Amino acid sequence: MERVGFIGLGLMGKPMAKNLLRHGFKMAVFNRSKAPMEELASLGATPCGSSKEVAESSECVITMLPDEKAVEQVLLGRGGVLEGLAPGCVVVDMSTVSPGFSREMARRVEEKGGEMLDAPVSGSTMAAEQGALTIMVGGKPEIFEKIRPVFEAMGKNIYYMGGAGMGSFTKLCNQVAVSLNLLGVCETLMVAAKAGLDLRKVIEVISTGAGGSWQLSTLGPRMVMRDFRPGFKVKHLRKDLRILRETTESLGLCLPGVALVSELVKTLDEMGHGENGTQALVEVLEKLCNIRIG
Amino acid sequence: MERVGFIGLGLMGKPMAKNLLRHGFKMAVFNRSKAPMEELASLGATPCGSSKEVAESSECVITMLPDEKAVEQVLLGRGGVLEGLAPGCVVVDMSTVSPGFSREMARRVEEKGGEMLDAPVSGSTMAAEQGALTIMVGGKPEIFEKIRPVFEAMGKNIYYMGGAGMGSFTKLCNQVAVSLNLLGVCETLMVAAKAGLDLRKVIEVISTGAGGSWQLSTLGPRMVMRDFRPGFKVKHLRKDLRILRETTESLGLCLPGVALVSELVKTLDEMGHGENGTQALVEVLEKLCNIRIG
Repeated sequence: MERVGFIGLGLMGKPMAKNLLRHGFKMAVFNRSKAPMEELASLGATPCGSSKEVAESSECVITMLPDEKAVEQVLLGRGGVLEGLAPGCVVVDMSTVSPGFSREMARRVEEKGGEMLDAPVSGSTMAAEQGALTIMVGGKPEIFEKIRPVFEAMGKNIYYMGGAGMGSFTKLCNQVAVSLNLLGVCETLMVAAKAGLDLRKVIEVISTGAGGSWQLSTLGPRMVMRDFRPGFKVKHLRKDLRILRETTESLGLCLPGVALVSELVKTLDEMGHGENGTQALVEVLEKLCNIRIG
Repeated sequence: MERVGFIGLGLMGKPMAKNLLRHGFKMAVFNRSKAPMEELASLGATPCGSSKEVAESSECVITMLPDEKAVEQVLLGRGGVLEGLAPGCVVVDMSTVSPGFSREMARRVEEKGGEMLDAPVSGSTMAAEQGALTIMVGGKPEIFEKIRPVFEAMGKNIYYMGGAGMGSFTKLCNQVAVSLNLLGVCETLMVAAKAGLDLRKVIEVISTGAGGSWQLSTLGPRMVMRDFRPGFKVKHLRKDLRILRETTESLGLCLPGVALVSELVKTLDEMGHGENGTQALVEVLEKLCNIRIG
């Protein structure tokens, strides 16, 4: 496994692809906008004119795209991966998509003689840059083992979760925890601000105990500083929550917390915060509570 | 500051009092039921017949009680602390109560020539045993400094948060984060169980990334094992959420997440889980989702 293709050089994809180059993989890349492709080319990657071209020269093709529609287009569309797929080539979709969609894509790739893994990630752009992502993988175990060195170039915590779709399912589970912890941080800061407490100190105190979370330690201070630069964008959380609700609806699950956060994140996006980081959720609570913190 | 009184030798109070003895404080103790008092006496504490008696022989009186009613009775009632209070004696209420109540008690203690701190804690009974509690203190800063050695015998992270009531306010903030993270863990496990994922592995994966929290790492595995032994009892969380809602109602705050968790915790208590640990909340979600995990 030497030749890896990478399609989708966005906020996460670009640093991930760079880490693969750093680890000595020979890379073909494709991206809709040209600038990140040129950046990767200057580091030694081969820029391609289509996804099909990437597939033709790769033993493993990674996709890191914003949504199912984009993945479907890149894999099944004209000039797409399936048109150039060599037998035995492994397609690794690292986008956050629904488990059902992952299974459908695996079926289509296998029909063409390829193999497929769903391998979404958890962690910020900083984790992507440091090669410290958490990667949750679904697919055949022997294919997972074959691709392991590729994952190890991008992530620190790499987990095999089960058959096709199980990586995507694990990512949805992760987003449940992320969303409710995020809401917890926002509501905590509302009480603290109204009480007149020192918000940074409250975050520090709570982080030492049973209320501690990654969301609190990492995003709490950014809320207080009103630093809404994106580690993870609101529009992507909204999309993930939509997928989560569709999936849990079809499974017959009743998740009142997820339902609540979904509504609030939708409001946040509609307020114009789509390109901001999810810590901007504090502004929805500020509206509800008619206060402004920090 | 050598002579410390301790009133309320429950799940948290008893190990806290033991740590004070271990650190060489001379202690007078009182508790409604006799057994824990005798246990402390066998370790060198002086058992008393009333709260008043404790106050008469102490420079600092600590109360660690289940609710405001109990604190009011112990401080203001017949045979209570105020009847035996020496001038300059410091009353330290470590119970979880409302900020308004803390301020009212401080006023009553100061009227009698004493001093008061509100100093609720965060952390499990294990943290209490290990002297590793987080302690959030409100009151006069010079009184906080005077009592600091007492806190250091019981806790690891000791924070001065501001004037009277600010310790209690910080604890309420902590309970907001705790509650929403707890709900997050329950809903995460519902999705994971319905997907057929390995629940322990999902907890491990999520704990490494942006969905990680103390509630997930600590209570998640107990939910999976259906180990509902209490670190923190459901009936106490219900009480804290009631105080939280009364306080935020009077402050005019709109906290939809807190409102939701409050309703679910009420249901949990009414289901007969009052004496169990808060991880039992998973059973409410199991009912809603009509599944059983683990």
